[in-house]
Amino acid sequence: MDTQSPTTTNLTDAQRIDWLRLIRSDNVGPRTFRSLVNHFGSARTALERLPDLARRGGASRHQRICSEEEARAELAASEKLGVHLVSPGEDGYPPRLAVLDDAPPLLGVRGLRDVLMRPMIAIVGSRNASAAGLKFAGSLARDLSDAGFVIVSGLARGIDQAAHRASINGGTVAMLAGGHDKVYPPEHGDLLTAIIATGAAISEMPLGHVPRARDFPRRNRLISGAALGVAVVEAALRSGSLITARMAAEQGREVFAVPGSPLDRRAAGTNDLIKQGATLITEASEIIQAVEPIMGRPIELREPDEDPLASEPDVSERARIIGLLGPTPVLLDDLIRMAEASPAIVRTVLLELELAGRLERHGGGLVSLI
Amino acid sequence: MDTQSPTTTNLTDAQRIDWLRLIRSDNVGPRTFRSLVNHFGSARTALERLPDLARRGGASRHQRICSEEEARAELAASEKLGVHLVSPGEDGYPPRLAVLDDAPPLLGVRGLRDVLMRPMIAIVGSRNASAAGLKFAGSLARDLSDAGFVIVSGLARGIDQAAHRASINGGTVAMLAGGHDKVYPPEHGDLLTAIIATGAAISEMPLGHVPRARDFPRRNRLISGAALGVAVVEAALRSGSLITARMAAEQGREVFAVPGSPLDRRAAGTNDLIKQGATLITEASEIIQAVEPIMGRPIELREPDEDPLASEPDVSERARIIGLLGPTPVLLDDLIRMAEASPAIVRTVLLELELAGRLERHGGGLVSLI
Repeated sequence: MDTQSPTTTNLTDAQRIDWLRLIRSDNVGPRTFRSLVNHFGSARTALERLPDLARRGGASRHQRICSEEEARAELAASEKLGVHLVSPGEDGYPPRLAVLDDAPPLLGVRGLRDVLMRPMIAIVGSRNASAAGLKFAGSLARDLSDAGFVIVSGLARGIDQAAHRASINGGTVAMLAGGHDKVYPPEHGDLLTAIIATGAAISEMPLGHVPRARDFPRRNRLISGAALGVAVVEAALRSGSLITARMAAEQGREVFAVPGSPLDRRAAGTNDLIKQGATLITEASEIIQAVEPIMGRPIELREPDEDPLASEPDVSERARIIGLLGPTPVLLDDLIRMAEASPAIVRTVLLELELAGRLERHGGGLVSLI
Repeated sequence: MDTQSPTTTNLTDAQRIDWLRLIRSDNVGPRTFRSLVNHFGSARTALERLPDLARRGGASRHQRICSEEEARAELAASEKLGVHLVSPGEDGYPPRLAVLDDAPPLLGVRGLRDVLMRPMIAIVGSRNASAAGLKFAGSLARDLSDAGFVIVSGLARGIDQAAHRASINGGTVAMLAGGHDKVYPPEHGDLLTAIIATGAAISEMPLGHVPRARDFPRRNRLISGAALGVAVVEAALRSGSLITARMAAEQGREVFAVPGSPLDRRAAGTNDLIKQGATLITEASEIIQAVEPIMGRPIELREPDEDPLASEPDVSERARIIGLLGPTPVLLDDLIRMAEASPAIVRTVLLELELAGRLERHGGGLVSLI
């Protein structure tokens, strides 16, 4: 088992339906979900207040709210496929993932849930990897697996596939960008079947969701977030693996990179990571040595949430704050200063805009109007 | 031109003969040479006192002292081959080499002496390099040469050869482990001829000296010492290039290493250097960026010499100090403390032992009796 996870009581059946309805409703992401539940005390109350909040944020079109029937149907179809929807703190929710700021309120988990409670190392890399890269990824995954680590990766062609295959015996985890029934790439259906026999697959997306380009970076945060560290084996410049490495660094995870010849384009990304401070590794023992001290420490809980809805903005405050926003991203801190309003009021207006589908949150505390 | 070199007056013809005699005499290395000249004020006086000092150190056999005739013969033969014997501070003596603790008192220089006054980068690596390694070494050398740097290397097969060849147009320097007339490897005679037409070759060894295994590490300190930094391209573990890298670090030179696949044994040494703190590089611009600030600073002169012969040890002191020494290396500082004698006295006894061929100096201030 990984070090202790934050204790959370299990959801009741009714709560699970409410949580699923809320996270599946328009304009509700993991962060908005938490703000709403913290403020209203339950997903049920939040669902009741959703239309009113979105209207105040200036929703131009009807905000679709997931019905109880839809949620029950998704739950039933998931159970049929062997997918359990688990919340942070429940069995099968990777403990390190549970403490992320944008931890999904519900994860669809298929396979052996106890594997997901063990310490994980992510291995990612090029889809069109070289024979040497594939071989190295396999031996790295095998050695880490033999040492007791669960290998997490993205089920892609190339490095991902090699890492999964080499660690199937010890248990490996595939993070999916689409729904559990929309395997990508399609030819990896058999690999996925083998993976869930001894390990698990995870998705935050509903069944039937065909992965779009933008779902892959979103999924990548789960790969790095679940792991103690991420090892990148062969990556060209500007590749998806580097996004995973960047997310890992932002999440405070260890970043390991496998070096390669300057003449090999597939090593340009990993060499670049090392130049930026990632740890050069050539064998599994170096990863184990680096993560062992982290495993010994308790998992750090996220900061307690500030309640963004604690204060009710009046009409003139709302107008002033919206007037300060535009398509150019601005820092939340600058916005608060310039709005001459309390941080709680500003956050409430932003949440209303978000629910109305009018706000985009960028990295680094930047927001803009859509 | 590299930044200003320490000003030294040129040697007179008579002085050059004396210097050559002293450095070519038994048991006189660059450090002993400096101690003797500093103490006695000239090489001439040191030569006169040499037999007496060696006798006091307990020389078991006759210490050969280079005669004036031998020195004149070496000078004449050198000039015939186009080899000039230059001292630190004279034209043709690389300025950064001149300030080393163990700078050779005379360097045999063949070719264009002005090339030796320009900023240098060393490129070294495997003799049995891969095609990719050879190609990379060539393009690195060419790019650095085009940027105005002189490439220094060891004339060996593999990486050295590729680096020399690619930088011949801009001037390249071959550091030799043997005498100028004993080219190693023998098949690189034509390469050497091409090198000295636009660049130079350097040796601290007399003509006729066939390089032995132990001469190569000794030569390697000149490669790193003459350069602003050393770039290692492909090196197996425990290879000569790593000795050059270690010497570079000890001399305060920048160490650059070219990464490679963990599956390539020829990259094990360079990857290891990066793990130990060397700068990972994949292109010439990264080396240039790193050395530019160093080029702007004046070359640091070595610490003024302490005069080891300032005090005359008495018989009991000499016996006590020799009694503390044995085949196991001890720290000079420990020896001084345990001998209950002044540092100057201890150093004098060690110098006498050295001239008698009875002392071995190891790295890190360690000495032992032979």
